[in-house]
Amino acid sequence: MPAYRAPVADTLFVLNDVLKYERYNNLPGFADATPDIVEAVLQEGARLAEEVFFPINQTGDQEGCTRHEDGSVATPKGFREAFEQYKEGGWMGLGFDPDYGGQGLPYALHSAVGEYFSSANMAFAMYFGLTQGAMAAIHVHGSDEQKQAYLPKMVEGTWTGTMNLTEPHCGTDLGLLRTKAVPQGDGSYRISGQKIFISAGEHDLSENIIHLVLARIEGAPEGTKGISLFIVPKFVLNADGTPGDRNGVMCGSLEEKMGIHGNSTCVMNYDDATGYLIGEENKGLKAMFTMMNEARLGVGLQGLSISEVAYQNAVDYAKDRLQGRALTGPAAPDKKADPIIVHPDVRRNLMTIRAFNEAGRAFLLWAALKSDVAHRSDDAGERELSDEMTGLLTPVIKGVLTDKGFDHAVMAQQVYGGHGYIEEWGMSQYVRDARIAMIYEGANGIQALDLVGRKLPANGGRAVQACFKEVGEFCEDNRSDEAMTFFTKHLKKGLNDLQAATMWFVQNAMAKPDNAGAGSYDYMHLFGLVTLGYMWALQAKAAQAKLAAGEGDKQFMEAKLATARYFMERIMPETAAHLARISSGADSMMALSAEAF
Amino acid sequence: MPAYRAPVADTLFVLNDVLKYERYNNLPGFADATPDIVEAVLQEGARLAEEVFFPINQTGDQEGCTRHEDGSVATPKGFREAFEQYKEGGWMGLGFDPDYGGQGLPYALHSAVGEYFSSANMAFAMYFGLTQGAMAAIHVHGSDEQKQAYLPKMVEGTWTGTMNLTEPHCGTDLGLLRTKAVPQGDGSYRISGQKIFISAGEHDLSENIIHLVLARIEGAPEGTKGISLFIVPKFVLNADGTPGDRNGVMCGSLEEKMGIHGNSTCVMNYDDATGYLIGEENKGLKAMFTMMNEARLGVGLQGLSISEVAYQNAVDYAKDRLQGRALTGPAAPDKKADPIIVHPDVRRNLMTIRAFNEAGRAFLLWAALKSDVAHRSDDAGERELSDEMTGLLTPVIKGVLTDKGFDHAVMAQQVYGGHGYIEEWGMSQYVRDARIAMIYEGANGIQALDLVGRKLPANGGRAVQACFKEVGEFCEDNRSDEAMTFFTKHLKKGLNDLQAATMWFVQNAMAKPDNAGAGSYDYMHLFGLVTLGYMWALQAKAAQAKLAAGEGDKQFMEAKLATARYFMERIMPETAAHLARISSGADSMMALSAEAF
Repeated sequence: MPAYRAPVADTLFVLNDVLKYERYNNLPGFADATPDIVEAVLQEGARLAEEVFFPINQTGDQEGCTRHEDGSVATPKGFREAFEQYKEGGWMGLGFDPDYGGQGLPYALHSAVGEYFSSANMAFAMYFGLTQGAMAAIHVHGSDEQKQAYLPKMVEGTWTGTMNLTEPHCGTDLGLLRTKAVPQGDGSYRISGQKIFISAGEHDLSENIIHLVLARIEGAPEGTKGISLFIVPKFVLNADGTPGDRNGVMCGSLEEKMGIHGNSTCVMNYDDATGYLIGEENKGLKAMFTMMNEARLGVGLQGLSISEVAYQNAVDYAKDRLQGRALTGPAAPDKKADPIIVHPDVRRNLMTIRAFNEAGRAFLLWAALKSDVAHRSDDAGERELSDEMTGLLTPVIKGVLTDKGFDHAVMAQQVYGGHGYIEEWGMSQYVRDARIAMIYEGANGIQALDLVGRKLPANGGRAVQACFKEVGEFCEDNRSDEAMTFFTKHLKKGLNDLQAATMWFVQNAMAKPDNAGAGSYDYMHLFGLVTLGYMWALQAKAAQAKLAAGEGDKQFMEAKLATARYFMERIMPETAAHLARISSGADSMMALSAEAF
Repeated sequence: MPAYRAPVADTLFVLNDVLKYERYNNLPGFADATPDIVEAVLQEGARLAEEVFFPINQTGDQEGCTRHEDGSVATPKGFREAFEQYKEGGWMGLGFDPDYGGQGLPYALHSAVGEYFSSANMAFAMYFGLTQGAMAAIHVHGSDEQKQAYLPKMVEGTWTGTMNLTEPHCGTDLGLLRTKAVPQGDGSYRISGQKIFISAGEHDLSENIIHLVLARIEGAPEGTKGISLFIVPKFVLNADGTPGDRNGVMCGSLEEKMGIHGNSTCVMNYDDATGYLIGEENKGLKAMFTMMNEARLGVGLQGLSISEVAYQNAVDYAKDRLQGRALTGPAAPDKKADPIIVHPDVRRNLMTIRAFNEAGRAFLLWAALKSDVAHRSDDAGERELSDEMTGLLTPVIKGVLTDKGFDHAVMAQQVYGGHGYIEEWGMSQYVRDARIAMIYEGANGIQALDLVGRKLPANGGRAVQACFKEVGEFCEDNRSDEAMTFFTKHLKKGLNDLQAATMWFVQNAMAKPDNAGAGSYDYMHLFGLVTLGYMWALQAKAAQAKLAAGEGDKQFMEAKLATARYFMERIMPETAAHLARISSGADSMMALSAEAF
């Protein structure tokens, strides 16, 4: 019963009219991404999402994965066939280095279709999403030999990848991890230990699974300084590069989870498994962060994806379900009742989600373009600043887009009334699936700490100043544009609150670090609001230009302006409460002793 | 692995020290509720909740209910035995009319133990909660004969009850309902139709199930003015009052739900079932509201209940789980890491939930005492005003306590990191169970409309003015108390925002009803914040008095003051955003045509 339609027109508006994507065509790969190619890729991605991935979303949730006695894991019905289509379409390497078989297209385009894939089937999309994270780590940190050995098959989708970080006693604090690596004298290691919550740890979609595993080499220092990263293939490669002997790594059990049932979340047991060091000894955490940063953007994307598909279904239901009459008089007098979309409080839910989705999409693509610049520009200074800005935006995207994505799945479910609570209608799955995105790849509280403790002060606050400058200049530049006053006024107010909060940290968190910790979560959301508000101001500007030029779909552009107004009036005012909370500091939060709880 | 400890000490503080419960001992039933009796009832309720109901909560979720081919439904393992203990303890009639076997104790006391029962096992507690709703309706609207026939057995718990409102095509808009009642000439009716989402519709806990069913008598007017309420017993009573022939009402299927798996949510098929009119013909909706009001307070209680049990488990986990080091330096230097309760962002989650739970408990008991006055005072004027105030507070309690209860279950789950997503740890169940409370007994958007559209303007706003007066006078009376300045300052600011929002409706909603609808949800939450803030100010005052007198547990009282400060600094500032949203009106919310979505 649920439905999904990939929002291709909106993606194109954001890329072409808002972010003016063609500005970047001096970057490698961008010249190939002509407007025609971009539209064709989006259309084909949309087709795959709608026709292949989405129809197995609800059945995948109901059926889940099955572990057999031999430790093998079967994915739900239809997943193998869908994965074949993904492989055959060359999607795995869409944005990847052509030297290893990728197409080298922009990461922004990869992200744009990635949204569709996760909207259609989040649990399924994780199988390739994690592979791409592993590919990125091998690409950056692997030796030439390792890259040649693993990347082409992964780019093909013939092999998949995983990330093995968490152990039963440690998740956030990886310094505590115990998995051991014993050198064998031949350059390889024997890896032993247990990893938990390993997404796609074992399944039947690929011929080999390339596990990236954090472990401690015998005799290494304690804590995070003694952690190394290893490649542990499910099948150790033969001399000719083909998968050979079964390695000592097994799925011990599948976790019973709240959602993403279609993805196999495994307890992985390593028992003298053959592994190969990737990157430098004891520098595993740094190498792992290459995976994590990409993965965090991908998780932020999941928040948007679920928010979008939940929204679409809530809209369909609200247009279809007849209950009550509009406060302004019957809207459908020929029917026994009006469709519930006439009721302001139903609109409140729909408009709130819509205002987030359309700005969240722009936010992600804006950050993805900065990431493209960081990786592809020929100007070292530009690369560096873009990399820092991507780093700054990553925890905001991960934390805010997943928190809001979940909230919006709940809101969309609410539009269904009692039917929202019944599994058959599909809304419960969106809520249950969206919930994990707030937790994995660094729980959102950790994102907030990363933002405030690490990204904000980095290089004297250069990245955050660059962000403030961009937003501030936009407000300044549009001061004389009367049609923009409404938007820049609200945006400037939000920016002021954000700058005041930043200043508060500067003045109050050095001497008392708990003040930073106590305000970090509110700061992350305050930052998110201002960024989303900026995206709305940019969209309003673009829509006004299109309307003035008589270009584009008039109803689409007018809806943009109405939604932008809604965001400014209804959502931006939250910045003040965040600032008030941040400025209250840590005292009342930390007043109770642990025993008093 | 989850745990539950009924917060008896806090309940006693609220009843004795904050609300000064003994003030009411002129009311019938209150004189029996001496401090000793109250404490004994709470302790025994706590024991039942902790030792009998809680141990079958997680297993009940996992096992769920089973419908057999003959339409009978089995509850999960242990539910029958637990229900026997509930019956034997006389809990069903704790607050009920002694003329029918009840104990006549205050509704406030009934609510206080009700919190424990729903914390321990929400799905289980619904079996008796719905029975009590049905008892209330029969008590108010039934004939003497009906009361004598059904109430004593229900008060014993030998028979249970249900509410049958929803049909596949109508929930909120009951005017659309189609279930038919055909008079038989002997005073009885034949009832035919289908009802859905019927909690406890069929089960194995009682000897008879007394269904209260909304139906339309043949030839009755269309819409809500043609609806009557019927008693339809599962077994029609014999002349001697014992259950006789099986009636034409069957459970057609069980719904597959997101949560409350231990409760049987049934599709009920009525096929020429024998029913008896209760109350007046075509006045069924009014009679049904007697059930609904009590049920709505009970659902608000569920929000608090889940928030409390989720909080307790998050606290236990936060004290136990070792990850990272305090920002201020190692708190447990002898261990490899500190317990995560040292981290400010973990505290933020815990303190936010705690600040809600302790105020929510006071709010519920404050409203329950008003309900007791409304039902038991010998002063007609006092009865009337208290009834109006209870009516005003009911949608706030239902809407705000369930929204926040769910949010807090999610927050508590977040404290667990990845383990929160795994069913084994129990936190997912709290989230899944809490979700329904925002939906049933009138979705929260309907509560907001009830508040703004019906309760607020009733009798020229008499009830709301009485509320504002009570809070305003408290602030005024404590102006000279320096220790209270911090609290009254924040409370007064919130009250000002609430009064400004009320005035905005007066000025802007008459001519344009959509302005009321567009602001209703924010108004409900704004009202909730001010009420909860008032509860904190009252608690701070009481704690200061106890500390000054050297009475009570010093750590407990100091924690009260710290939590009160947290609420004022961190949660009250949200009132401004609600006011800003309300004042923005309906324009941007309603700007899009339905087709533009």
